[in-house]
Amino acid sequence: MKISIYIATSLDGFIARENGALDWLPQEGNEEYGYKDFMATVDILVMGRNTFEQVLTFGEWPYGHKSVVVLSSRLLQIPPHLAPFVEAMSCSPHELVSCLAKRGAKHLYIDGGKTIQGFLEAGLIQQLIITRIPVLIGRGIPLFGALSRDIPLRHVETRSFANGLVQSRYEVLK
Amino acid sequence: MKISIYIATSLDGFIARENGALDWLPQEGNEEYGYKDFMATVDILVMGRNTFEQVLTFGEWPYGHKSVVVLSSRLLQIPPHLAPFVEAMSCSPHELVSCLAKRGAKHLYIDGGKTIQGFLEAGLIQQLIITRIPVLIGRGIPLFGALSRDIPLRHVETRSFANGLVQSRYEVLK
Repeated sequence: MKISIYIATSLDGFIARENGALDWLPQEGNEEYGYKDFMATVDILVMGRNTFEQVLTFGEWPYGHKSVVVLSSRLLQIPPHLAPFVEAMSCSPHELVSCLAKRGAKHLYIDGGKTIQGFLEAGLIQQLIITRIPVLIGRGIPLFGALSRDIPLRHVETRSFANGLVQSRYEVLK
Repeated sequence: MKISIYIATSLDGFIARENGALDWLPQEGNEEYGYKDFMATVDILVMGRNTFEQVLTFGEWPYGHKSVVVLSSRLLQIPPHLAPFVEAMSCSPHELVSCLAKRGAKHLYIDGGKTIQGFLEAGLIQQLIITRIPVLIGRGIPLFGALSRDIPLRHVETRSFANGLVQSRYEVLK
């Protein structure tokens, strides 16, 4: 099973403002920068409750019929039109991976600050694709959090785009 | 007057461990990655007391005869052999720039977390050269801090090196 993160951050490492706002992201949206190709390889998208509730405010559901698991320790209200694709689960990262592997999932995409941090600390992330937006926003929801040990990475490639975005891909070294 | 930062960070944005340790940096040292060329254009290196005291523990003074200003609100002990090159000052970023401009300085290199953050907040940084080390260290002294406003940047160039370092250069947009 492969487990990846694919996320944009400000140059100072935030994935959203403190209130979840993404107004500092470029307007072009996610479809560029290899996102579509990446998503085509993903079996299941895993996110935390906060990210899910933020995505619901966008109006249109951006993930089509892709299977989505929302990690939430509290009861989660899933809108009926999303029920065929979205499932709530309450378990640890290791339990989740074991459970989804049994279902035949081969590539998980982990999204959302706390969820990413939990999977990194659990040693479960293999690939990080991080796109740096050329702005400092000073405060917000951080991509990374405390770890109980160093996590060494292998840099695979970096590409930069005309609008100033810089995307780097890393693999976690075991 | 041009004012730059040139610094290495972990992928999670730390410039040192909480105790100042730099053991997670690659062993090759600073001389590569354009540092020498950059330093040759610098008139005065400005750092905070914490960085200065950390550098003193390295044993050999790494800045040769380059003029260094150490910002410190408390009395600073400068070792006699460094006195010809190192000067302590206690003033705001704007005062410092004004003072050093009068002396004819054309390019300042700002170093150290708190000092960099103070100059960014004061709107005085023009160029950021940031070299990402492929490791997550989880906690430490952050490069960036809170800001009272967004600071938009222009991406100038990014280069990556065989050992996985990724160096990006940005200019602050006014």
